[in-house]
Amino acid sequence: MSAERVDVEQKVLSANDQIASEVRGRLAGHGVFSVNILSSPGSGKTTLLERTVDLLKPSLRLAVVAGDVQTRNDAERLERHGIPVQAIETGGGCHLNARQVSESLESLDLGEMDLLFIENVGNLVCPSSFDLGESRKVVLLSVTEGEDKPLKYPAAFRRAGVLVVTKVDLVPHVEFSTQTAIENALSINPDLVVLSTSSYTGEGLDSWAEWLTGQVTECKQGS
Amino acid sequence: MSAERVDVEQKVLSANDQIASEVRGRLAGHGVFSVNILSSPGSGKTTLLERTVDLLKPSLRLAVVAGDVQTRNDAERLERHGIPVQAIETGGGCHLNARQVSESLESLDLGEMDLLFIENVGNLVCPSSFDLGESRKVVLLSVTEGEDKPLKYPAAFRRAGVLVVTKVDLVPHVEFSTQTAIENALSINPDLVVLSTSSYTGEGLDSWAEWLTGQVTECKQGS
Repeated sequence: MSAERVDVEQKVLSANDQIASEVRGRLAGHGVFSVNILSSPGSGKTTLLERTVDLLKPSLRLAVVAGDVQTRNDAERLERHGIPVQAIETGGGCHLNARQVSESLESLDLGEMDLLFIENVGNLVCPSSFDLGESRKVVLLSVTEGEDKPLKYPAAFRRAGVLVVTKVDLVPHVEFSTQTAIENALSINPDLVVLSTSSYTGEGLDSWAEWLTGQVTECKQGS
Repeated sequence: MSAERVDVEQKVLSANDQIASEVRGRLAGHGVFSVNILSSPGSGKTTLLERTVDLLKPSLRLAVVAGDVQTRNDAERLERHGIPVQAIETGGGCHLNARQVSESLESLDLGEMDLLFIENVGNLVCPSSFDLGESRKVVLLSVTEGEDKPLKYPAAFRRAGVLVVTKVDLVPHVEFSTQTAIENALSINPDLVVLSTSSYTGEGLDSWAEWLTGQVTECKQGS
């Protein structure tokens, strides 16, 4: 990689970090807890969010910023669950950046929000480098992707606070040891909170909802 | 995105295209047919290659260039099948570039090769922008990823010559219409050759091997 390119990339990251810091301040000022959800395409981000919204909507005020390279499909699926959703189409861009999130927040009422989900572009590499001002990064790994993904794509797992293993209902049909996958993830980041879930059977979703609710409560106490 | 960043990106792409063109010339000079394999992490690129190598090794001289963000896992799996393999660790890079492929070819004997597989980094966004000098791009989509991926990540499907649907043995266990996924892909690129496969049951692998063998024959006739 050329020195010129590295220099420009550092400038881009530094400018992003400054906007991310502003976003973090705005969210904290309103006591909003936020998660930036990272995973490969097709790991089940949107389906997990649909189930999570149904579980938490009676007790918390929710909103979603949903990023995609193309289409508003994910945003439209989530809107049907009756919460405010802002779609970001990156038009080829391989990750969300803090400016896009900051602009999306202009159309959301932070005073009427407890928990903000930011669904990143499906990509296990690039999104991990860009702080969006979130409280925590959450990385999803579906059981169909293989146990070695934390070792092969370590940055996302190193920077996340939580690993949500998804689609565990498919374990009987694939060659996948959940234990080995979790051990691999913990070897990259021993502080990861690990949850195993199936959006199809509902397994593990209560624990995930409890974790989120606990974080929201802590966030309100701190604000 | 800043004008400065766009300018640097265009320079990077242009420099890459020049090296890709040199790679294409070297491969053509030796009558080597090559495929650049793109997909999300965990779509089954390496497993498909393992099965393909076993099928084609008796009749064709094969080699692999295997890219990964981190680890040499995929290269080691493929080496066990008794063919020359060059590993590229990108160290955080989200795609292979033509220079990396060009350098890998220095360690491979093009005079003893009919078919070169280039296994790209698992990422459905960035690799599609970088020509590696390959004869054809092949995009994999596993049935666990959802039917909408061609619409959400169109560039990879637009630039590929072949779509290999993988893991079709899992169709009974997931909500996935192979027909809808293929229709979505063809709406992006009507010229796609489409193959449905399972590396687990072997379904469709003969058709894939036949397609590759046919391309190698055409390539030899043209060289």
